[in-house]
Amino acid sequence: MIQGMRIPEYVQIKDVSPRDGLQAEPTIVSTDQKVELVNRLTAAGVPVIEVTSFVSPKWLPQMADAEEVMRRIERKPGVRYSVLVPNPKGAERAFQSQPDEITVFVSASETHNYKNVHRSISESLAGFAEITEMAKDAGVPVTAVIVTAFGCPYEGRVPQSQVLDLAAKLTGLGILDITLGDTIGVANAVQVYDMMEAFQLSLPMVRLAMHFHDNRGTALANMVAALMAGCDRFETALGGIGGSPFSPGAGGNLASDDAVYYLQEMGIRTGIHLEQLLEATRFLESVIGHAVPSRVYRAGGRMTPVGPEGDWHE
Amino acid sequence: MIQGMRIPEYVQIKDVSPRDGLQAEPTIVSTDQKVELVNRLTAAGVPVIEVTSFVSPKWLPQMADAEEVMRRIERKPGVRYSVLVPNPKGAERAFQSQPDEITVFVSASETHNYKNVHRSISESLAGFAEITEMAKDAGVPVTAVIVTAFGCPYEGRVPQSQVLDLAAKLTGLGILDITLGDTIGVANAVQVYDMMEAFQLSLPMVRLAMHFHDNRGTALANMVAALMAGCDRFETALGGIGGSPFSPGAGGNLASDDAVYYLQEMGIRTGIHLEQLLEATRFLESVIGHAVPSRVYRAGGRMTPVGPEGDWHE
Repeated sequence: MIQGMRIPEYVQIKDVSPRDGLQAEPTIVSTDQKVELVNRLTAAGVPVIEVTSFVSPKWLPQMADAEEVMRRIERKPGVRYSVLVPNPKGAERAFQSQPDEITVFVSASETHNYKNVHRSISESLAGFAEITEMAKDAGVPVTAVIVTAFGCPYEGRVPQSQVLDLAAKLTGLGILDITLGDTIGVANAVQVYDMMEAFQLSLPMVRLAMHFHDNRGTALANMVAALMAGCDRFETALGGIGGSPFSPGAGGNLASDDAVYYLQEMGIRTGIHLEQLLEATRFLESVIGHAVPSRVYRAGGRMTPVGPEGDWHE
Repeated sequence: MIQGMRIPEYVQIKDVSPRDGLQAEPTIVSTDQKVELVNRLTAAGVPVIEVTSFVSPKWLPQMADAEEVMRRIERKPGVRYSVLVPNPKGAERAFQSQPDEITVFVSASETHNYKNVHRSISESLAGFAEITEMAKDAGVPVTAVIVTAFGCPYEGRVPQSQVLDLAAKLTGLGILDITLGDTIGVANAVQVYDMMEAFQLSLPMVRLAMHFHDNRGTALANMVAALMAGCDRFETALGGIGGSPFSPGAGGNLASDDAVYYLQEMGIRTGIHLEQLLEATRFLESVIGHAVPSRVYRAGGRMTPVGPEGDWHE
């Protein structure tokens, strides 16, 4: 009996290019350009956009205009404009800008968390407890990203149980929207599929999202594995920007363009208009001044038969 | 209950770089270099190698030394050295070189077949009937590739039934080893998975292999879908070469390096030694004189934790 591939009918894309993408760019992008990028993502139909990050400008000068960007973007009803916060101090700033959700982040591996935010995982969680209290008062939902969830540059492979334990602590703080980040692009299909199943079994209340980096060209393959295990939320970045643009084989994010194209070809709805998204990529490329890694942007999205007279070489 | 991802324990990789790869290269590669490429693939543990093609040198000058390459390669017992033939004339030449198998090819779409080999699909099949007779006498197995099996540049999306009908005709000629080629890189996971299931249902005697091109970065994702539907044979090319090196966003083959790395990470055996394969890629790159698209070759295969003192930027 033909079963068919068991996949979701709708997938929610959260585009993180204005934050995770631009923070990795060497060029400082102007506030005008950031606002236009977010507006173009909105116009293309992206349902959730990570607009900026309320980190100290000392650490990330690229995000120093967080308040201004949040004030100037055109908000479309129904679209969620999300912001990243590293700690309670950042959250305080963030709430002033009326985000639709705020996102906290913690590493699955102790060493990476310390290198990234200069505190232990427990110290990060203590901060989240404060933040969720503030969020309750402000009426803003909190989501969390567990970074290095599949592998850590310092500790290597991260055990599944370590990720589940950390996620359980997040649910204890009332955070049920959790994203797993493959920060250095080392996840594989089996690991992703099994992780997804383990969450469904032990933390069925969690709404899990996946955030794949593409250092080794594995991001789309990992997305297929996640989809087949029932995952219906992905974080991607326009053009595939992000990661470190200075390292060879640059490991950007899964490109929103590539993800949306492939989901559309699979018959999965995203509500995103691919051609308009590719227009936004064209704009992004002009802003950052170098080629983006997106494959569909380069090769063209739809198959357009050239007809019997077309020129074709195998 | 945790099911785990249902995948094969062993996957057979057929490296087609000496043929499908080199034929697309503008530089003429010397016979010595071709022989060394095949020998390096053998040394890395590749179980099946597509060594060359017995086409007219008029059409493909790059393959004019087919006989000499076949004579000079070092054959390792157990490894299958395969050759491509376009017609009975090519097959006659091929059998002289004692291949372990010969491969014929036909398009799923009439227009593409005509453009590619200047005959109709029925004329191609008539030629295969002659070839299988010759092969029986020579005691050499015949395999077939159905190209444009997922999409055709002239006719667009190719219906599944068209591929099944053509495959059924091939089985009628005694050809049970059949490869489906996504020649222009337009397949998606659902299409691949459903195709695989349809073959299992209507042509269960066929040993199906998949051959994905990577024009839109979808080849590895399509491999995951095929694996999950039970496919355990893939054709890949060292370094990801192949396709048209002249078009932007060059659509090469799925890189053997990337496929082997990812399968290995998933815990699937291939018998191939990744580090030796990457050495072969280094050699290949020096021969063709330009960067290969393989991602793992660029980024490094294994995750090597740098330890707590390492330098890391998110």
